[in-house]
Amino acid sequence: VARRGDPRTPTAEAVIIGNEVLSGKVRDENAPYLIDVLRRLGVALTRVTVVPDAWDAIVETVSEAHRRADHVFTSGGVGPTHDDITLPCVAAALGRPIIRHEGLERMLHDLYGDRLQAAHLRMADVPEGTELVMGDGLMVPAVRCENVFVLPGVPSIFRQKVDVIARWLGAVPYHARYVFVQTGEGALAPILHDVVARFPDVDVGSYPRLDSAEYKTKVTLESKERARTEAALEALLERLPEGALIRVEDPGASQSPA
Amino acid sequence: VARRGDPRTPTAEAVIIGNEVLSGKVRDENAPYLIDVLRRLGVALTRVTVVPDAWDAIVETVSEAHRRADHVFTSGGVGPTHDDITLPCVAAALGRPIIRHEGLERMLHDLYGDRLQAAHLRMADVPEGTELVMGDGLMVPAVRCENVFVLPGVPSIFRQKVDVIARWLGAVPYHARYVFVQTGEGALAPILHDVVARFPDVDVGSYPRLDSAEYKTKVTLESKERARTEAALEALLERLPEGALIRVEDPGASQSPA
Repeated sequence: VARRGDPRTPTAEAVIIGNEVLSGKVRDENAPYLIDVLRRLGVALTRVTVVPDAWDAIVETVSEAHRRADHVFTSGGVGPTHDDITLPCVAAALGRPIIRHEGLERMLHDLYGDRLQAAHLRMADVPEGTELVMGDGLMVPAVRCENVFVLPGVPSIFRQKVDVIARWLGAVPYHARYVFVQTGEGALAPILHDVVARFPDVDVGSYPRLDSAEYKTKVTLESKERARTEAALEALLERLPEGALIRVEDPGASQSPA
Repeated sequence: VARRGDPRTPTAEAVIIGNEVLSGKVRDENAPYLIDVLRRLGVALTRVTVVPDAWDAIVETVSEAHRRADHVFTSGGVGPTHDDITLPCVAAALGRPIIRHEGLERMLHDLYGDRLQAAHLRMADVPEGTELVMGDGLMVPAVRCENVFVLPGVPSIFRQKVDVIARWLGAVPYHARYVFVQTGEGALAPILHDVVARFPDVDVGSYPRLDSAEYKTKVTLESKERARTEAALEALLERLPEGALIRVEDPGASQSPA
């Protein structure tokens, strides 16, 4: 059920760039972080794509994400080394030339001082029309061109920049309830069908867990209106078989990342 | 550097299906597991896409992965509930009709007995031409149609089925070495350029870690020939500045998943 197509709901896509993730040398921490921040912001993440450090794959994926989503976040490929090609790829995806950004160049000079290498300055070569997103705690601002935020793969810096960008993106948060039951998905299916039919504006999911002694299925209910989530919860609880309910959880919702 | 295009190297793509992952209700454990298994098998994973439970997104993504990669693994959307649409989507992506698979139907009857619901039988409705991959410990076999393995999202079952499929896919493993250094990426860049130029068949990566007191950059070297990985390692170590090296790690390589 992709009911996140609400016209009030902004959408986002993430493009995670890096051979190291696909080959298992480094475990991606950035998509999970972004997922949590966007959930709390009420921005609907509609796709995550992990691609190698390869020109065609990056250009094509960024270009499609740019057309489909309100916001695009890329992670990785913006350092000074030979395989860092994200900025020229984003330029190609947006049909823009690469220019040396004077503000960024100055900041890199300030940051590295004597240690500045020619390779560092590649980080100041950005698509024409790039704007900088400044914020607390950032040594180097986040880079945005049109709807594409180009972020580094290094997890600590990625998180800092996402937090700064999140403050830009005001949106309506989701209200969710999680229901843990001792009922398998087969027996739940007709009950959930019924809830889905009565509450078409509520996102209903069910996730069996076979290796948990505690519960058999986790049912999730989510909408942008607290009253609708609660009404769907009540409808679900009424229909559950005697003794099936274990507990109901409120994962919380807030306007800004923790 | 996408040097995994070696003609001997089979490729794979993963399609992770589920609103629950994109909305942060459930953290995906299946892509990381698959990444580890494929790395040890020497299969090059070239893309991971996380899509919602939405017809167009699933059909389009599976169809593209099917054309691009040797093997495609889907995760999620094969249970008995209303949002489980992966099997019909895979059928559409492959241009095949859906049929009720007699073997699967029989196994579901055996498995559920009296508790079998009509909803369970949806799991036996598969693309025409589907073959079953049997293996130790599987209550229900893995489902394969052409080069697409259709796997459930429940992590414990996903892992069991991937392990069984991995035994099918003999391949040449990668030999990797990880080098941890006290040198930043800027100063490393010319050294790595040099190693890349001399060893075009070795995959070279560098990953800065700013929040570690232990090292500044992790350099990875990887190829399908142990001797080439070791020669590239030697070339790198020779060029490192005095005192930069912290340690060298061998992540191991094996023909089969642990």
